[in-house]
Amino acid sequence: MTVRIGVVGAGWIGKEHIRRLTHTVTGARVTAVTDIDPARAAEAAGLVGARVLPDGAAVIALGDVDAVLVTSWGPTHAEHVLNAVAAGKPVFCEKPLATSAEDCLRIVEAEQAYGRRLVQVGFMRRYDAGYRQMKEVIDAGRIGAPLIVHCAHRNPGVPDSYTSDMAALDTAVHEVDVLRWLLDDEIVSAQVVTPRATRYRAAHLKDPQIMLFETAKGVRIDLEVFVNCRYGYDIQCEAVGEEGVVRLPEPSSVALRGAGQRTSAVLTDWVERFRGAFDTEFREWVAGVGAGSAPTGPSAWDGYAATVITSATVQALESGLVVPTDLKPRPAFYGGAA
Amino acid sequence: MTVRIGVVGAGWIGKEHIRRLTHTVTGARVTAVTDIDPARAAEAAGLVGARVLPDGAAVIALGDVDAVLVTSWGPTHAEHVLNAVAAGKPVFCEKPLATSAEDCLRIVEAEQAYGRRLVQVGFMRRYDAGYRQMKEVIDAGRIGAPLIVHCAHRNPGVPDSYTSDMAALDTAVHEVDVLRWLLDDEIVSAQVVTPRATRYRAAHLKDPQIMLFETAKGVRIDLEVFVNCRYGYDIQCEAVGEEGVVRLPEPSSVALRGAGQRTSAVLTDWVERFRGAFDTEFREWVAGVGAGSAPTGPSAWDGYAATVITSATVQALESGLVVPTDLKPRPAFYGGAA
Amino acid sequence: MTVRIGVVGAGWIGKEHIRRLTHTVTGARVTAVTDIDPARAAEAAGLVGARVLPDGAAVIALGDVDAVLVTSWGPTHAEHVLNAVAAGKPVFCEKPLATSAEDCLRIVEAEQAYGRRLVQVGFMRRYDAGYRQMKEVIDAGRIGAPLIVHCAHRNPGVPDSYTSDMAALDTAVHEVDVLRWLLDDEIVSAQVVTPRATRYRAAHLKDPQIMLFETAKGVRIDLEVFVNCRYGYDIQCEAVGEEGVVRLPEPSSVALRGAGQRTSAVLTDWVERFRGAFDTEFREWVAGVGAGSAPTGPSAWDGYAATVITSATVQALESGLVVPTDLKPRPAFYGGAA
Amino acid sequence: MTVRIGVVGAGWIGKEHIRRLTHTVTGARVTAVTDIDPARAAEAAGLVGARVLPDGAAVIALGDVDAVLVTSWGPTHAEHVLNAVAAGKPVFCEKPLATSAEDCLRIVEAEQAYGRRLVQVGFMRRYDAGYRQMKEVIDAGRIGAPLIVHCAHRNPGVPDSYTSDMAALDTAVHEVDVLRWLLDDEIVSAQVVTPRATRYRAAHLKDPQIMLFETAKGVRIDLEVFVNCRYGYDIQCEAVGEEGVVRLPEPSSVALRGAGQRTSAVLTDWVERFRGAFDTEFREWVAGVGAGSAPTGPSAWDGYAATVITSATVQALESGLVVPTDLKPRPAFYGGAA
Repeated sequence: MTVRIGVVGAGWIGKEHIRRLTHTVTGARVTAVTDIDPARAAEAAGLVGARVLPDGAAVIALGDVDAVLVTSWGPTHAEHVLNAVAAGKPVFCEKPLATSAEDCLRIVEAEQAYGRRLVQVGFMRRYDAGYRQMKEVIDAGRIGAPLIVHCAHRNPGVPDSYTSDMAALDTAVHEVDVLRWLLDDEIVSAQVVTPRATRYRAAHLKDPQIMLFETAKGVRIDLEVFVNCRYGYDIQCEAVGEEGVVRLPEPSSVALRGAGQRTSAVLTDWVERFRGAFDTEFREWVAGVGAGSAPTGPSAWDGYAATVITSATVQALESGLVVPTDLKPRPAFYGGAA
Repeated sequence: MTVRIGVVGAGWIGKEHIRRLTHTVTGARVTAVTDIDPARAAEAAGLVGARVLPDGAAVIALGDVDAVLVTSWGPTHAEHVLNAVAAGKPVFCEKPLATSAEDCLRIVEAEQAYGRRLVQVGFMRRYDAGYRQMKEVIDAGRIGAPLIVHCAHRNPGVPDSYTSDMAALDTAVHEVDVLRWLLDDEIVSAQVVTPRATRYRAAHLKDPQIMLFETAKGVRIDLEVFVNCRYGYDIQCEAVGEEGVVRLPEPSSVALRGAGQRTSAVLTDWVERFRGAFDTEFREWVAGVGAGSAPTGPSAWDGYAATVITSATVQALESGLVVPTDLKPRPAFYGGAA
Repeated sequence: MTVRIGVVGAGWIGKEHIRRLTHTVTGARVTAVTDIDPARAAEAAGLVGARVLPDGAAVIALGDVDAVLVTSWGPTHAEHVLNAVAAGKPVFCEKPLATSAEDCLRIVEAEQAYGRRLVQVGFMRRYDAGYRQMKEVIDAGRIGAPLIVHCAHRNPGVPDSYTSDMAALDTAVHEVDVLRWLLDDEIVSAQVVTPRATRYRAAHLKDPQIMLFETAKGVRIDLEVFVNCRYGYDIQCEAVGEEGVVRLPEPSSVALRGAGQRTSAVLTDWVERFRGAFDTEFREWVAGVGAGSAPTGPSAWDGYAATVITSATVQALESGLVVPTDLKPRPAFYGGAA
Repeated sequence: MTVRIGVVGAGWIGKEHIRRLTHTVTGARVTAVTDIDPARAAEAAGLVGARVLPDGAAVIALGDVDAVLVTSWGPTHAEHVLNAVAAGKPVFCEKPLATSAEDCLRIVEAEQAYGRRLVQVGFMRRYDAGYRQMKEVIDAGRIGAPLIVHCAHRNPGVPDSYTSDMAALDTAVHEVDVLRWLLDDEIVSAQVVTPRATRYRAAHLKDPQIMLFETAKGVRIDLEVFVNCRYGYDIQCEAVGEEGVVRLPEPSSVALRGAGQRTSAVLTDWVERFRGAFDTEFREWVAGVGAGSAPTGPSAWDGYAATVITSATVQALESGLVVPTDLKPRPAFYGGAA
């Protein structure tokens, strides 16, 4: 059975996913598209023979939409997700789930009221082959209990519109989610220290930043966020446990010897780095929806936690203090405890 | 437009590709299946809702078969491919194209008579990301003119039915094809030397073997074929040029530090090693067929060359001599020269 | 000219250096040895045909002692170094220079009063080939201005007598010195966060610890100290600059493929890790003394800085606060500024 | 006891070893030097306060010469080594031991007649840390019985005076010796194939060459010799056994990330590559001579074997044939068998 998908938001990432659902993932068909800019919606819909609808509500209500993909502007996410839950339709929402903790909680409550999971949030790193290998190693006890995680998230550059709070909200949010999952643990506090800034940043920007997180189990995470590192898009992650250390692999690349050097390429484009993860993410989501089973990916609760933790990180940056995340207790509906 | 595919041969690899065409590659649908064992055909067809037909001819003739996949027993390939060409239908044939040079040439002639390319042979390595990176590096002149290629093809083990000639015919055939493509060059002679045999081989088997090839341009290739290496499935390739050296990357794998060692996994399964290559191979083939364009993958001529060169390699093994491959001149139809 | 060396302290490290000065480094001869335990002194002296003297003062005063090596118990270092300076003899003092900032300053003042450098402190990492390569890369501007340094210092295990403050005083002290030199910068504050402790530590011990340092130029350093990591002795260092990243190499080790894995050994012994550095350190020191030139290695000022910074780090551990190091201004005698 | 060494030949390598014996290795002193060019002898002797003597015979006869280092022109080696043996003095002879098999055998016979080993030949690779690790791994049975060895010996360039036979005689000779030792096996035949030549060679030179050796136990060795590879000095060695594969490590070098690449330096100078091996070689030789024990390094027999095998390799290059080495049986004096 082909899953018929309605897409709310046809910007860059929306179009990327429409292409993915059409040409890369089997079992899905995009049947309806909307966007705040009707021309953009028409263009995206035209590529795949989908209908253009006036707004998200119309897409969600449509009979031949089995599931909803929300790729609109962040502040509008909550409304569309709540609509989809109200309609009892599975909904995949690009991060963030919502821009405020309150909106995230409204979704969490609506989903619990509905009685089964409908919402998946687009944290694709859980689908990256390297992180999955790390999780297997950790879950198998091969490094013993995790104690420390060292991470780096480096981008070659960012536009001038990128502000200091986005280092947490837009960039570190990926580590926040993937580390909660990798460690099966919760982040309870955040601190940010700011090294000397690179000359290549915009004047208003604190770059790089070092974020320090503590988890409920006492694991300490240090995360370098450096969005003007110039040399490449480079994601590093190393988990240190009681009996060993596991490290994310480098992306595979031919080694060249020439002119007194061994060289391998470093990726410069995050889309290339996580293309495989995006593909797997949607393949598994579509398969689950097609089979009528609840989503197994990042939940509304994970979306809530990410929003709360990254907001606390922004506060930590601004105050210079260690800021507790003060997450609410995790409902049993979302697996309890951790 | 969905490409409707008829499958001739529902053994292990046939079923694997049926699954791939159904669940991994978009734009295709398997509509008919046959096998020498009707139960096996029925089982495979049942999984994807395809019809079962009595034989290859029936599959090829079927109206709702746009393209043919030949995954039957090697000695039957030629017949099915010739039938497909006669029917003017695109045909993807797992290696070998045919088990004799004569049969390969009959296909080559039939295809030329038809007037455009219809045949693609299943040498998947050309679609492996690592080999493609190597080819980019070589084609960009970054190692200068290639002079030597060092290769190793290691399998953890083989069944007792694996015989010494299969080292060339079934195993080295992949290097033969990918190196001709990588170097844009032709193999003109073969020699085989046999090291001390491993104790872990069957008594009748010469394992490992070292194959030495020379190309038209004078490049020398040494290829270790070791099919009972026990430790893993390991493919190595290093091209040495006038100005540098390029090497196939290791498959990406997390690094673990523990108990006095750094360790990374070595794959043990060839299917896992080349899964991505198979996917890309079929994705590109289906896209091409769907677009009505001629195949760009390994041609009938490449299939002919592989059969001739690996046969010469078997002769070299048996005689201890350097055996010229004596390939016919390449028709302009297949790009001429190289 | 052979440099005649008097050794004060014949414990493990003293004997190691006596052997080094006799069998590995040319141009030196150990002529006198003392130790608080006369039997130990006699044993060490006997190996190399040196005289045994009753105490450090006697060794330093001896006519056929050109230079002094202090390898006694830490709290006695200051006395012997001051004696050597008073005698106008070059003195190599194993770390720490002295256990209090006050004693370090007395040495610094005595040396300045003497009018030329006589003191070198035994921070051997500056002589490690890998750190030297890193320094060349940084000094050549190949990573641009340094912004962040990530370090790890892991030991397989420690005796029960190892206490939490030793993580800074005995272990991190090596990074403190080598980073000041690598960055040509001063450390101005320290903070320590304590992850969940490993089950393999003694009950009284905080292990691992993460130390956070800030430099005068604003570089941020994070240093994992983990002295019961079990798997090996592992020193990591990565400097992140405005234009690139440079990383300490792994010790060279053969790679083995077997049983589904690629493996390389991780060292388990710090002596093996830094043997080459120790050899170079003494080779250069002896050559300098033999040539009558002032030492170029870690100075008394570096010894003072290391003692002050590691003491501040212990305070930071105990208080949970960010502790400024409040170093005195660097005298021009020691190169000023940085 | 200091070993007093007389040096016959003060060219580049002679001076290098004089420096090494004086400034790097303890326990030795160069007391006499000769050279066919008296000025060159005087210069070298002056650096270390040694006497200049008119010829090798005078050096060998001198009372305060305990051991002899032969670093003269290759064709004169045999005479000096025979003289040293006649005088009952330990002699270290740079490779080759002699330029003809006959001369090598005369030395072998003289040494046997003398009754104990005096001769060591300067094959330094046996002292390289990486090769020693490989030997440990092989001897411990960790790869099972060796079956194949893949090697490459690449130099950035050679002077015009370098001729095609020197690829075996001067270059591959190092692999010939180290592989006999690594495998504890004898080389019984040689074959050479010549790839397309690099444009960067002199017109008279066959470069690169691929040498194929077979051992008594049936191990097959392929050795790429490429002396104008331009990009660096690069030594590769990989031994393939019944249960695993071991590979020589890359020289340790910092990794730099910058401008879309990860890079590490490749050495360009063979002296730098094997400096540590040379040091260890002389350290162990001097220690042995000082202790009055027989040398444990490459023997006169190894020197004979190297000369015979590399001569056979030159014949193989010139004839295009597989050439048996026809080594005489190994005398029990030299450890028999292998």
